[in-house]
Amino acid sequence: MPAMIDHPTDQATQTTPQHVPEVVIVGGGFGGLRAAHALRHAPVHVTIIDRSNHHVFQPLLYQVATAALSPADISGPIRGIVRRQKNTEVVLAEVTHIDTGRQQVYTHDLAGSYDRTFPYDYLILATGAEGSYFGHDDWAEYAPGLKTIEDAIAIRRKVLLAFEAAEAEMERDPEKAKALLTFVVVGGGPTGVEMAGAIAEVARNALVKDFRHISPASARILLVEAAPHILAAFPQSLAEKAKGKLRRLGVDVRLNARVESVDADGALINGERLPAKTIIWAAGVKASPAGEWIGAETDPAGRVLVLPNLTVPDHPNIFVIGDTASVKSHEKPVPGVAPAAMQEGTYAGKVIRARVTGKPAPGPFVYFDKGSLATVGRSFAIAVIRNLQLSGFIAWVTWLLVHIFFLIGFRNRVLVMFQWAWSYFTFQRGARLITYNHADERVPAAR
Amino acid sequence: MPAMIDHPTDQATQTTPQHVPEVVIVGGGFGGLRAAHALRHAPVHVTIIDRSNHHVFQPLLYQVATAALSPADISGPIRGIVRRQKNTEVVLAEVTHIDTGRQQVYTHDLAGSYDRTFPYDYLILATGAEGSYFGHDDWAEYAPGLKTIEDAIAIRRKVLLAFEAAEAEMERDPEKAKALLTFVVVGGGPTGVEMAGAIAEVARNALVKDFRHISPASARILLVEAAPHILAAFPQSLAEKAKGKLRRLGVDVRLNARVESVDADGALINGERLPAKTIIWAAGVKASPAGEWIGAETDPAGRVLVLPNLTVPDHPNIFVIGDTASVKSHEKPVPGVAPAAMQEGTYAGKVIRARVTGKPAPGPFVYFDKGSLATVGRSFAIAVIRNLQLSGFIAWVTWLLVHIFFLIGFRNRVLVMFQWAWSYFTFQRGARLITYNHADERVPAAR
Repeated sequence: MPAMIDHPTDQATQTTPQHVPEVVIVGGGFGGLRAAHALRHAPVHVTIIDRSNHHVFQPLLYQVATAALSPADISGPIRGIVRRQKNTEVVLAEVTHIDTGRQQVYTHDLAGSYDRTFPYDYLILATGAEGSYFGHDDWAEYAPGLKTIEDAIAIRRKVLLAFEAAEAEMERDPEKAKALLTFVVVGGGPTGVEMAGAIAEVARNALVKDFRHISPASARILLVEAAPHILAAFPQSLAEKAKGKLRRLGVDVRLNARVESVDADGALINGERLPAKTIIWAAGVKASPAGEWIGAETDPAGRVLVLPNLTVPDHPNIFVIGDTASVKSHEKPVPGVAPAAMQEGTYAGKVIRARVTGKPAPGPFVYFDKGSLATVGRSFAIAVIRNLQLSGFIAWVTWLLVHIFFLIGFRNRVLVMFQWAWSYFTFQRGARLITYNHADERVPAAR
Repeated sequence: MPAMIDHPTDQATQTTPQHVPEVVIVGGGFGGLRAAHALRHAPVHVTIIDRSNHHVFQPLLYQVATAALSPADISGPIRGIVRRQKNTEVVLAEVTHIDTGRQQVYTHDLAGSYDRTFPYDYLILATGAEGSYFGHDDWAEYAPGLKTIEDAIAIRRKVLLAFEAAEAEMERDPEKAKALLTFVVVGGGPTGVEMAGAIAEVARNALVKDFRHISPASARILLVEAAPHILAAFPQSLAEKAKGKLRRLGVDVRLNARVESVDADGALINGERLPAKTIIWAAGVKASPAGEWIGAETDPAGRVLVLPNLTVPDHPNIFVIGDTASVKSHEKPVPGVAPAAMQEGTYAGKVIRARVTGKPAPGPFVYFDKGSLATVGRSFAIAVIRNLQLSGFIAWVTWLLVHIFFLIGFRNRVLVMFQWAWSYFTFQRGARLITYNHADERVPAAR
């Protein structure tokens, strides 16, 4: 690629020769990485700022949380991913605030160095979303969400410890053991469905011979959804099939069910008290605070209302993309999914490249909907690809191939494929570790 | 295997028909698991108590600490390993004390259940060893040791964060960046040698293109050994070859070098102040407190002085094995290595099986030394197998095969082999994650 690397130098003459424009990208997720990639040959200097040193393939995070895969199988160091991109550097830091007047991003360093300030000519905010507890942030302690590798390890620990504690309690306090063997997943979107299906398989298959006092297969798994349907983004007939598969896996799917409170011992759902020691939050998301940083107008979920070219009104050099942005395409809101974030990242990078090289900017952002997929346990998925609707084994194979294809790196692809094959044939889960930050932090997680 | 599972029932008639003898094994390491395995067909009930839910293949722990492998690649759930052993159960708990008069083990539960007491007829203590700071336990904070998965993740974080912090400091404070790029490994045994070699390869190969302000290849790696030689357990000529290989990797091997103090900013070695932000402790080990629990006589390293049949004087039903025991074989002390622990575990299990079935007990424990291996970076190892001494590539291949062979489980073997091949050809490290217990624990580790 040497010829292509020389390319930007030729184009750089079209901008100010002394000043290489600074592009700061906050967030090394799907959107941020695609934006950086689109700028790899542009005459700019790119700085990617992230709180983690690694990019995470979020669609498979639930498989880490349910002990099927290791964290490193679905993630990679951001530095390594952009290693060959000479115009790009990576900073491990947390944004504290942004001064849009001075065009500077202020950060808190996370490597133990000093807090630095990064000036920008162009800014791309791609900071994603986090779980929303609809004003009940105190529930987060009892019902963790799933957004980071740390979240996944914490949920894995919580789920595995619940079986351990139930084994110990069975003879002394069967009621407590029952509460320990009750798992509630709140939220019937793809993450909630995949999580509930995976927990059911852990209990029914992987752990079934491992205990002497409890029968893990007797575990109760509930999927609680406030709306009348799960998987609202899918055609209703497909969602019904997914629901049927969940029920065959022994998941108790509760529709029109509102979670009214959550505490250490269970939840109140539609007025009914449900004793449950493990509650996982896969319901609403709210955008990261990027909108607050730049004082921009946001929708009720905290997403920045951006213009059709993904810039912020009155800030033509600030782009907001991915789950942090609210934008329409073909008159419909662009969904908060990985392909949308990637397309928006590529688009933002192209707009910047056009501007710094004096080329005409592309037209407004158009979302190309490649389709939707959701899997329910082994051998079953549902898929919508254009006008095609699939369910069952063929959709599951499609799901497998698509996820393998979008994983970054040959190593991760082989590791994930092998472990899926191994799990498929053995019914086992390969990453059943209960780990802590330090060994002396062993604190009972399941009270 | 149904015929073999029926077998113990036949033999059970030879013991008291009402009472199935209770065997409590503390520790699910190499020794404890082998003991349990030797008892799989014996007419006893076995309880394995461990602080972790997983068995760890400790000889490869340094590869987790240096980002080559994931924790789950070298470990497996103890429950899963003994799943098919119907007479065995597993408890996630920490021993608090032992009453040898009442024959009871008292534990603190780690799953969030209640603290239980386990009566025993036979007790096997296989609790291993931990790092010894020779009376300077305050050094542990600055110079972590490597015994558990948690230790390995903490060291991985510390090493990776040091490069991140150096990148940020390079332009502001090059002296601080230099201290951040100085890695000191204390202890020239196999673990220290392997760790120093692996850090050198991370710096010289894996990270070399990932930074923009520092040159990771310029990192200083020191291996500090108080004795005049590294790898004292090997013939001197082989140890010299390993030292030569370390030096070719750019490791500064300091012999006759005493660590006089350790703090957050470096170490005092032979009166010389060495600024270094990352210090790893691979020096002395001391036995776990099993000797204190039973009030037994111990050697200065805390190992219980056991009789030739591995029982404790005056306690013929208590066995101490592995790194926790001090015993001689062929007039020589049995070394604190995995094969010795495994052989002792099998032996203890056989003695118990003979006693409960009324068979004659085997003679005193005899250690069969299969040989020793140590690896230094890629493509180089040293090996002693009987009278055969090997070094270089052929020893490295031997090292690979032996480690793959002793890994538990098909899954782990394939994962480790694939990742070694990938690392070998790409010079990369696949598990370069900086992770924390919870996302909000992001605390600068390198000050």
